[in-house]
Amino acid sequence: MMSDEGSLKLAIAGLGTVGAGTIALIEAQGDLLANRAGVAVEVVAVCARDRQRDRGIDLSAIEWWDDPVAMARESDCDVVIELIGGSDGVAKAVCEAALSAGRHVVTANKALIAHHGTALARMADATGVSLGYEAAVAGGIPIIKSIREGLAGNRFTRVQGILNGTCNYILTEMRETGRAFDDVLADAQSLGYAEADPSFDVDGIDAAHKLAILASLAFGSEVDFANVHVEGIRRIAPLDLEFAAELGFKIKLLGIAEQTADGIYQRVHPTMVRVDAPIAAVEGVTNAVETLGDFVGTTVLQGAGAGAGPTASAVMADVLDIAAGRQAPVFGVPADKLSPAKSQPMSHHVGSYYVRLRVIDRPGVIADVTAVLRDNEVSMESIIQRGRAPEEPVDVVLTTHETTESAMQQVLSAIDGLQAVVEPPTLIRIEQD
Amino acid sequence: MMSDEGSLKLAIAGLGTVGAGTIALIEAQGDLLANRAGVAVEVVAVCARDRQRDRGIDLSAIEWWDDPVAMARESDCDVVIELIGGSDGVAKAVCEAALSAGRHVVTANKALIAHHGTALARMADATGVSLGYEAAVAGGIPIIKSIREGLAGNRFTRVQGILNGTCNYILTEMRETGRAFDDVLADAQSLGYAEADPSFDVDGIDAAHKLAILASLAFGSEVDFANVHVEGIRRIAPLDLEFAAELGFKIKLLGIAEQTADGIYQRVHPTMVRVDAPIAAVEGVTNAVETLGDFVGTTVLQGAGAGAGPTASAVMADVLDIAAGRQAPVFGVPADKLSPAKSQPMSHHVGSYYVRLRVIDRPGVIADVTAVLRDNEVSMESIIQRGRAPEEPVDVVLTTHETTESAMQQVLSAIDGLQAVVEPPTLIRIEQD
Repeated sequence: MMSDEGSLKLAIAGLGTVGAGTIALIEAQGDLLANRAGVAVEVVAVCARDRQRDRGIDLSAIEWWDDPVAMARESDCDVVIELIGGSDGVAKAVCEAALSAGRHVVTANKALIAHHGTALARMADATGVSLGYEAAVAGGIPIIKSIREGLAGNRFTRVQGILNGTCNYILTEMRETGRAFDDVLADAQSLGYAEADPSFDVDGIDAAHKLAILASLAFGSEVDFANVHVEGIRRIAPLDLEFAAELGFKIKLLGIAEQTADGIYQRVHPTMVRVDAPIAAVEGVTNAVETLGDFVGTTVLQGAGAGAGPTASAVMADVLDIAAGRQAPVFGVPADKLSPAKSQPMSHHVGSYYVRLRVIDRPGVIADVTAVLRDNEVSMESIIQRGRAPEEPVDVVLTTHETTESAMQQVLSAIDGLQAVVEPPTLIRIEQD
Repeated sequence: MMSDEGSLKLAIAGLGTVGAGTIALIEAQGDLLANRAGVAVEVVAVCARDRQRDRGIDLSAIEWWDDPVAMARESDCDVVIELIGGSDGVAKAVCEAALSAGRHVVTANKALIAHHGTALARMADATGVSLGYEAAVAGGIPIIKSIREGLAGNRFTRVQGILNGTCNYILTEMRETGRAFDDVLADAQSLGYAEADPSFDVDGIDAAHKLAILASLAFGSEVDFANVHVEGIRRIAPLDLEFAAELGFKIKLLGIAEQTADGIYQRVHPTMVRVDAPIAAVEGVTNAVETLGDFVGTTVLQGAGAGAGPTASAVMADVLDIAAGRQAPVFGVPADKLSPAKSQPMSHHVGSYYVRLRVIDRPGVIADVTAVLRDNEVSMESIIQRGRAPEEPVDVVLTTHETTESAMQQVLSAIDGLQAVVEPPTLIRIEQD
């Protein structure tokens, strides 16, 4: 699939920070890349919305295309690098056009792979080309290659991670400064760590995209984004972070995928993790992914989850594999050997829980709350009331022993119905291992 | 390089725990491996010292060889897996025989690669075969593949790690229990975490082997084990771990390789790392490797550094690459493009230092010690004396600002010559980042 001239020709669709970063990387590392891949790597075509915008890079020697789909199909390239984004529309059309035309595709587009990964993998297999998406999950961390090749001797039963740097930054700041979510989010936006519309990040959707991809790769199953249970971090209060610390936990937005005998659980939600767990030490915008393989045990990879440099690094890893003629099945096994995803509903999840209540401090309230737990056969592990303020609202937190999600949802709804409970309860899941 | 029958044929030299683990892995994961690699993987020949020993695996269908070199050269295999160990002798002869005969080699032998890696890479390049050594560094952690491929878009300036699980276990235990080195080592030996002759581990040689390999791969230079500065952990006392905690550090045996404008530093020694550094959280037998690349920034991989399962996992990663036809240059670039290693001597190292002294508690001692620092233009950052005991020995620790190793060695030797200093001083290097 290399072109005659002994160089690998790239066409880049989308010239935002990652596109510009990729071109900057190729300019900076030219000889190094050629030595490592055996052939030179060369950008021959680019396409973006605005030709005039100054991106700080020299595009004069590169063919400009106004239509990215036409570029994918017709330009003189070996690889199309899709950096437009979005699960459908132009990005999808570009990748489909490239794969149909027998061009390799490299993409940083997690939404696209989460929604259409299996179909795109089938197209890639049909024409025998590569579909690289290292940059779509956890930025510069080589987690896709590690699961697909470096740990390929293992059966995986679990993959979990801090997959969204924005959320991890916000939770870290909230814990360290005691400030509220909205306040820290505003800061994150001004620092460029969060988008103007932050919902993809803070509502957990971005992490869910990445989790669905990791689950498919680790378990050899079709990508199943529709069945990821997703909760974001908007309801986490500074008080939760204080209580967590008191109980020996940190709160992280985790994506967790588990392969069980009954099927696959995929869930993204705020999670209490023990302070001494490796993943608890991952702070700020850093990402981390932890895998559990039957022979290797637990492996943790951490690093920069976003940004022009780290994402360009991941894009280039895929490009260099193509340049060197290294190919691996898109999701670890050929697309026609991926098992249909057999998902388990969140209601079947078994775990322990943290619940924070705001209740009127009066005799009998705690008895009412604990009666709800007893009636649903949920065993309480601890209960803490913060302060005393007769007939005023106070905060009460309780933690449970292992129980089912469905029992806990009944508990929550019953507690919410108690007259002394003045706000909807906040529930956070606890991971003991 | 695949054999006609559509399976990849392996010959295994050495059937200790890793060899038996590799066979167990192949038995357990047969279909999975075939799906991932596109062809089945099959052990066709084995060789070990004692044919009769019960290894808990069925070898009846596998050809037995008494001579591993003959097996490497003459058996009907595609890949020779060398698990004998040792930098020279039989292990080297096996690998050379296999590479000369155009067979791929996979090895877990860090001593061999550290001493002869460049020459073996040249042999592999000459016959166009792979030389895989993922299992030689940091056990199951896919660090070789990550540096060589997953992060290949980067120029690296630093790679460092906790590369020896025995030492990390001993230091963790010493810190947590306050027990002395000899005591904890004896425990580690009875638990199987340390060898009967522990010197390769506790004197830093094993970590140095791994560091030399990582440095070559990261910096694209010939393997240069001879120029690794090596110190082990025998002189670390529980008191040092206490002082470290007081100063905000943990003590780890780190291997550190740095690429500077003047050349490459490679050093293995006990190191003070800030308690909040990612690597400080890595405890017990776990290994971790941290790389610094110009585009990706800092990436940390951690996991099991030894043991049958993790090492077999790493062996299998290399085997599956070969089975799938994926090849990468042995040290990231072709052997004839590796730069001659330009090493910098330890005396040029610049850093800050911790020194522990045992001195007679009498007027003027601290003045004498600080005068030595002043005379060598070493700037002191802090000094702590533990307790008071006039005319009896007490412990004093001091830390310095950045200075050169050569100045510090002069300081040490002058301090050691002071009449009130009753034991040779203990020096530990501090890494601030």
